[in-house]
Amino acid sequence: MPSLQAQLNLACQSIQHAIGVGKVADYIPALARVPADKFGAAIVTVSGEKAFFGDAREPFSIQSISKVFAITAALNRFEQQIWERVGHEPSGNAFNSIVQLEKEHGIPRNPFINARALVVTDALLEGQTTTDCSNQMLELVQLLADDDTIAVDNEVAQSERDTSHRNAGLAHFMRSFGRIENSISDVLDVYCRQCAIAMSCEQLARSTLYLANNGTDPITETHIVNEERGRRINAMMMLCGHYDASGDFAHRVGLPGKSGVGGGIVVVVPDVAAVAVWAPRLNANGNSHAGTAALEALVRATKWNVL
Amino acid sequence: MPSLQAQLNLACQSIQHAIGVGKVADYIPALARVPADKFGAAIVTVSGEKAFFGDAREPFSIQSISKVFAITAALNRFEQQIWERVGHEPSGNAFNSIVQLEKEHGIPRNPFINARALVVTDALLEGQTTTDCSNQMLELVQLLADDDTIAVDNEVAQSERDTSHRNAGLAHFMRSFGRIENSISDVLDVYCRQCAIAMSCEQLARSTLYLANNGTDPITETHIVNEERGRRINAMMMLCGHYDASGDFAHRVGLPGKSGVGGGIVVVVPDVAAVAVWAPRLNANGNSHAGTAALEALVRATKWNVL
Amino acid sequence: MPSLQAQLNLACQSIQHAIGVGKVADYIPALARVPADKFGAAIVTVSGEKAFFGDAREPFSIQSISKVFAITAALNRFEQQIWERVGHEPSGNAFNSIVQLEKEHGIPRNPFINARALVVTDALLEGQTTTDCSNQMLELVQLLADDDTIAVDNEVAQSERDTSHRNAGLAHFMRSFGRIENSISDVLDVYCRQCAIAMSCEQLARSTLYLANNGTDPITETHIVNEERGRRINAMMMLCGHYDASGDFAHRVGLPGKSGVGGGIVVVVPDVAAVAVWAPRLNANGNSHAGTAALEALVRATKWNVL
Amino acid sequence: MPSLQAQLNLACQSIQHAIGVGKVADYIPALARVPADKFGAAIVTVSGEKAFFGDAREPFSIQSISKVFAITAALNRFEQQIWERVGHEPSGNAFNSIVQLEKEHGIPRNPFINARALVVTDALLEGQTTTDCSNQMLELVQLLADDDTIAVDNEVAQSERDTSHRNAGLAHFMRSFGRIENSISDVLDVYCRQCAIAMSCEQLARSTLYLANNGTDPITETHIVNEERGRRINAMMMLCGHYDASGDFAHRVGLPGKSGVGGGIVVVVPDVAAVAVWAPRLNANGNSHAGTAALEALVRATKWNVL
Repeated sequence: MPSLQAQLNLACQSIQHAIGVGKVADYIPALARVPADKFGAAIVTVSGEKAFFGDAREPFSIQSISKVFAITAALNRFEQQIWERVGHEPSGNAFNSIVQLEKEHGIPRNPFINARALVVTDALLEGQTTTDCSNQMLELVQLLADDDTIAVDNEVAQSERDTSHRNAGLAHFMRSFGRIENSISDVLDVYCRQCAIAMSCEQLARSTLYLANNGTDPITETHIVNEERGRRINAMMMLCGHYDASGDFAHRVGLPGKSGVGGGIVVVVPDVAAVAVWAPRLNANGNSHAGTAALEALVRATKWNVL
Repeated sequence: MPSLQAQLNLACQSIQHAIGVGKVADYIPALARVPADKFGAAIVTVSGEKAFFGDAREPFSIQSISKVFAITAALNRFEQQIWERVGHEPSGNAFNSIVQLEKEHGIPRNPFINARALVVTDALLEGQTTTDCSNQMLELVQLLADDDTIAVDNEVAQSERDTSHRNAGLAHFMRSFGRIENSISDVLDVYCRQCAIAMSCEQLARSTLYLANNGTDPITETHIVNEERGRRINAMMMLCGHYDASGDFAHRVGLPGKSGVGGGIVVVVPDVAAVAVWAPRLNANGNSHAGTAALEALVRATKWNVL
Repeated sequence: MPSLQAQLNLACQSIQHAIGVGKVADYIPALARVPADKFGAAIVTVSGEKAFFGDAREPFSIQSISKVFAITAALNRFEQQIWERVGHEPSGNAFNSIVQLEKEHGIPRNPFINARALVVTDALLEGQTTTDCSNQMLELVQLLADDDTIAVDNEVAQSERDTSHRNAGLAHFMRSFGRIENSISDVLDVYCRQCAIAMSCEQLARSTLYLANNGTDPITETHIVNEERGRRINAMMMLCGHYDASGDFAHRVGLPGKSGVGGGIVVVVPDVAAVAVWAPRLNANGNSHAGTAALEALVRATKWNVL
Repeated sequence: MPSLQAQLNLACQSIQHAIGVGKVADYIPALARVPADKFGAAIVTVSGEKAFFGDAREPFSIQSISKVFAITAALNRFEQQIWERVGHEPSGNAFNSIVQLEKEHGIPRNPFINARALVVTDALLEGQTTTDCSNQMLELVQLLADDDTIAVDNEVAQSERDTSHRNAGLAHFMRSFGRIENSISDVLDVYCRQCAIAMSCEQLARSTLYLANNGTDPITETHIVNEERGRRINAMMMLCGHYDASGDFAHRVGLPGKSGVGGGIVVVVPDVAAVAVWAPRLNANGNSHAGTAALEALVRATKWNVL
């Protein structure tokens, strides 16, 4: 059997033609400026083996991937109650008519997921300042990645905050229904800082390894979440992790994962590894075009798919 | 034929049993405190004749009735262009999925109309401060009512502003679609002050007399809007003036009118008069229960209905 | 003052350039074949005076205008109960998500109104055969127009029936919610025959004269509906008579009316007259382009508008 | 390690208290009559080992589980083109406003999935009679289960057909948008017969074993679908297999599966086995209450979950 590194090399080389396809997110200048043809990939296995390709150590904006960390923090703090606030189905929830509103105007990102993420942020803010809440989130990510150099990209955070009208609309609506308790401005501050955390493929893969190991970091043996909560997060990633293309991703890659508009995708291979890829150009559904292709190729070679 | 005053007396006396029916708006304390059994009515004819009943000279919060004055100001300033921003149909517009969202949560007020009003306010703010914009609106109302004692109820304005999450949600959504240009906070400040203008039935009837006279105040002969715009405002009041009960109102009263959650209703009798009523208890659709009944009785007696 | 005929001539001549604008309904061949540049107009006053212009005596397919006759029949048979089945507001009803579905696919006709019309037809079918029910409707129209030569265009009826998938969808949905009681096939048979009644402008104006006269035919003195029901029908026409352009029509024409995709429009001038126009080319909202223009010109000259 | 049979026994015994919870589907008499406290379970492994519990050999109505077989047939006949007709995402498709309509009326079954299934049936009908099409479907199921005693329950089929107003509404709507090509009556005939196929847990588990073995029946070595299509079907079951509770099922059971309102559920354990359970009482989402509990218990013991 070829080595892990060889398999990663082969998979990534086979999809280099895909790197030039798609469009970089340009709703804020700080994202639009990212060189469009960057490409990185990293594997970290539960036994600690690593493999890298291309720009695997260059940090980028994790954006919606941060929702995995936020729900991890919220599950530990609020247990089952967080689901009563948030829900965990791919459709049929209380906010789907806002989804429709969005769709009518052609916005590619699923605001239901944003709506959920804002409620999670609101829950995490309970009883503390925005600074403390943001710091806690960053510290959790540093702990998970076992790397305290990870930081927030302040320019991205500010830029997101300045243009967060859609999220502000969602948050005010939910506030008027009593589903948001803190000030909207505070919720948006924390949420935009969380999305603006910058991480490399290596750090991302490392930081989600606990989800491949029943909730416990297999390297440091730190208990992050219990097995039951780990399964819940994996199920959520499988069913809702890729905006309106979650079904397509489940078919092509067959692994729980989460993508962000910064061009990153992280997937969990239960009992085996975590894999992160980065390629800034997005397909029509807002997922990294070359990143998805690389994961598909890797999974074909390794037979890591669970579906 | 009985005198105008006699007709008003008869109509109002015949519906006194209706005054105790319904529920006062209680979403802000300043409205909830209004004595529930107040009842006033006033007629002002195009020839200057007046008739009053009950609490006809006591000011109350005009709320959504202010939208008639805002659209009057916007029509004069922006002419046809305001319709491109706002639309004028009772249904089938770009924001109806927000309407649905609202309906699913059982909110009785039609936010589509609020969405429209916020865009009008945004247009009026163009090139001026919130203070100047609010003052202009108040001065317009004073001019229309020929009464410079009319004022904003600051407690109501502040209270509305503090609880305006739903309107903030609408405004942020519209901003994210590029339909609002000013800061949301400024738009809400001006909008809440406009809704909090306090007027009596006498002042309200007097202030809408221009709509019964092809756009010109028949007493002072001040030209307010041209005939074409006056017809447009009357058509809008006929089709959309009473939330989800506009069809019912058109059948029972048969006149263009506008209601507010403060319990006021004003109707225009083309070429004849303007009539205002006030009774704080609202029916399930958010319109004054006794007020509607009084107008229905008056119209049956006077044959003023146009339908 | 110019004679009625002179006023009609002037109004119609002033809009002849509009006859070539718009698109004839072509969803069935029998409608698509109608010469696109036909134009007719007819006035019948409550005192029996008549005026004609152009193709005023040529029959055309009345289509949705038939809903005025159906609701007249239903009101007389079921009184208030029909509103419990049908509703009478321009928006905010149980079927608005079907409306939205339709809109997303760009269909110009408001199916809510179709949904309502199908329920009315279902009610009228109660206790009789489709043939008897269709005959009753035709006899009512003949009585109203005082003209027993009026007939159903069988080719149009059959063609409508063959392509009535959308209406079948609406009817089956309503049946699944228990709102339709007869067989869907029977309801569609009767409905399609009703829409295929062929009438001239003269016959149409004559047949709605009772709505200008408190529910009683002013020529034959036949009592058709009571005053209260006549007001209800007029209010419904004012608020919902012209699909998604009812607000625009109320502004431009200022009279209760009903249009059909056959290019006909009938309006009621309370206490004065009924007016029918016919021009097959439709605007984007499915209303006769030249017909609306002619009514607008006539109303400007006669000051017949009530708004 | 305990034997397969011992593990199944333990899992099923541990949830016997759950058998009495929930409500049997009663929209047709033939389903309502099924004894509510039936309970069966069957495992068939890729190596041919079998285990049974309770009423594992008693046939019941498979209902929506039949969609797995229909999509299998359609994939083989139309390849990729079937997805262009049908779509494969858990949300965000052209028919979601019908979903909403349904939800507003509290119907527990997700009609989007029905809408999709009707389009699949329409495709399968292409070029053949309803009898041939129904027979082909039954023959496919007999082949998959390696058991030619499997039959349609004609009483259930007729009963479904007689009450299929909602599906008729969906089909007519789709026909009006050009998405259904055959007669609605034919589509509903075939669809209702397919849902009325009666199978036991043993037959169901056996018939889906190809999905646990990359598309090939591991016992007979019959090639059913290629690996790529097998993954697609598994992904669809994982994301959409359990109405509005697919997220909950993914978390609790962590396997691709499909449930039916007859109380059956089948799940695929990739490379290992297929499992079917049957317990007629349904939870609020329309899935078998005790069946889900049994699968959850079995998966906890066997560690068969992939998430």
